[in-house]
Amino acid sequence: MSESSNLSTQDILALMLQRDRFSQWLGLEIDEYAAGYCKLHYRITDAMLNGLNTVHGGILFSAADSALAFACNSHGILSVALDVSISFTKAAKSGDLLTVEAREVHLGRKIGVYDIRTTNEQGELVALFKGTAYRTSKPVS
Amino acid sequence: MSESSNLSTQDILALMLQRDRFSQWLGLEIDEYAAGYCKLHYRITDAMLNGLNTVHGGILFSAADSALAFACNSHGILSVALDVSISFTKAAKSGDLLTVEAREVHLGRKIGVYDIRTTNEQGELVALFKGTAYRTSKPVS
Amino acid sequence: MSESSNLSTQDILALMLQRDRFSQWLGLEIDEYAAGYCKLHYRITDAMLNGLNTVHGGILFSAADSALAFACNSHGILSVALDVSISFTKAAKSGDLLTVEAREVHLGRKIGVYDIRTTNEQGELVALFKGTAYRTSKPVS
Amino acid sequence: MSESSNLSTQDILALMLQRDRFSQWLGLEIDEYAAGYCKLHYRITDAMLNGLNTVHGGILFSAADSALAFACNSHGILSVALDVSISFTKAAKSGDLLTVEAREVHLGRKIGVYDIRTTNEQGELVALFKGTAYRTSKPVS
Repeated sequence: MSESSNLSTQDILALMLQRDRFSQWLGLEIDEYAAGYCKLHYRITDAMLNGLNTVHGGILFSAADSALAFACNSHGILSVALDVSISFTKAAKSGDLLTVEAREVHLGRKIGVYDIRTTNEQGELVALFKGTAYRTSKPVS
Repeated sequence: MSESSNLSTQDILALMLQRDRFSQWLGLEIDEYAAGYCKLHYRITDAMLNGLNTVHGGILFSAADSALAFACNSHGILSVALDVSISFTKAAKSGDLLTVEAREVHLGRKIGVYDIRTTNEQGELVALFKGTAYRTSKPVS
Repeated sequence: MSESSNLSTQDILALMLQRDRFSQWLGLEIDEYAAGYCKLHYRITDAMLNGLNTVHGGILFSAADSALAFACNSHGILSVALDVSISFTKAAKSGDLLTVEAREVHLGRKIGVYDIRTTNEQGELVALFKGTAYRTSKPVS
Repeated sequence: MSESSNLSTQDILALMLQRDRFSQWLGLEIDEYAAGYCKLHYRITDAMLNGLNTVHGGILFSAADSALAFACNSHGILSVALDVSISFTKAAKSGDLLTVEAREVHLGRKIGVYDIRTTNEQGELVALFKGTAYRTSKPVS
């Protein structure tokens, strides 16, 4: 008996997006979605700024973490982030359009590892995110 | 000529809180604040949930990242997060009250390192966050 | 049927130490060992230095990683490191005696999280290591 | 007055290799070296094994950390690792030939960020390493 979902990859994405209220608040827009892969973009708003008037690091983390969730659940196995490391390389400000690209670099039976890069409109790296997801034994449903 | 701010520790906190719109959105409430230390709490709302109906990992990261910003700027030197690693150990759900405690474990001339723990009302660890901050040569102002 | 080992905590340690050739090369000496806990020390030798004549970061990582292995296997369930983040806070040089203390901060069914600190003889933090271990379904044997 | 070294990229590598005793112990062999880039290989020996008879995680870390040191010092500015996160994705055993490739993904005034991948002879990812280096104000000399 297979543990993975009967849903198509696109159905999984639709389901996740529809339910994920914080990703909706972030205004994430999906550009591409495939097994183990997700590319999305979003625009920095004033509500996302920290005390230095630049984007709060938590926003950069959150958008990348959503991309991780979308990418690691794409196989139909319910998966959750376990461990993440993020390096902040460039500040972003209100109005900036950021692109997030998540690539699966390892897929094991219980563990997936993802390399997720956030870049600005100039193509500069804003944050590098490395995430490890744990694959449960339940289907996405 | 000193690089550090003339502001008191409490003035620094007031200034940071007043300007930090995303920390306001999170509803962070400070419990204790001292040089290299910050303890705060917040309550999980529906808007903070992900597609699994548990708190979005980005929320847990964001509140801890704010605690890092408050703790590392407490010395009056403008400081920014450089590298963070977070381990998620327990899910939290809407209505949960979470406490975040940031402790400085190293303070060098250019670098500070912080151990930040998020716990729930049962005292269980929800997330362990290790953050490295870069200390610029500007004062907090 | 229990998955955990019949071996006592001290037998597990003896077994791991006897088999672990690289820990032997490092000259690790155990000071204390208990369920979810390990304290050890070692001395930096010339063979452990990098091109700057300070200890190679890989040595600091390795000793902490061994402490992680000892601590996470103490429960009798075969466990392996999955994800580690290390922050280097102070250089060490040849002849220095370093102490490594590993504490379990979370123990779940499949995952354990460890906070591991390396200090020098002055009690200064040399490296902060956060490690996540995966607990297999096999006993230590 | 320039802070960077007068040495050529190849001279920097020769100097670092000649002085780095632990990299010599690891048997690291450089395949390619350029500004912000290093590719090397090494073979796992019995002395590098842990108690499970697989390569000790500290060895995988160490070889990648050396690649980081070589890559980040290639610009002639003395640089040291500050923060590293490593994900272990596949075990390696005695006799395995591993390749390590370090790529610079960000180079700022004071900070460089590196993506370092270790693969086996089957091209499988053994470890993913993300490292942040601090660039001092001294030349490599």
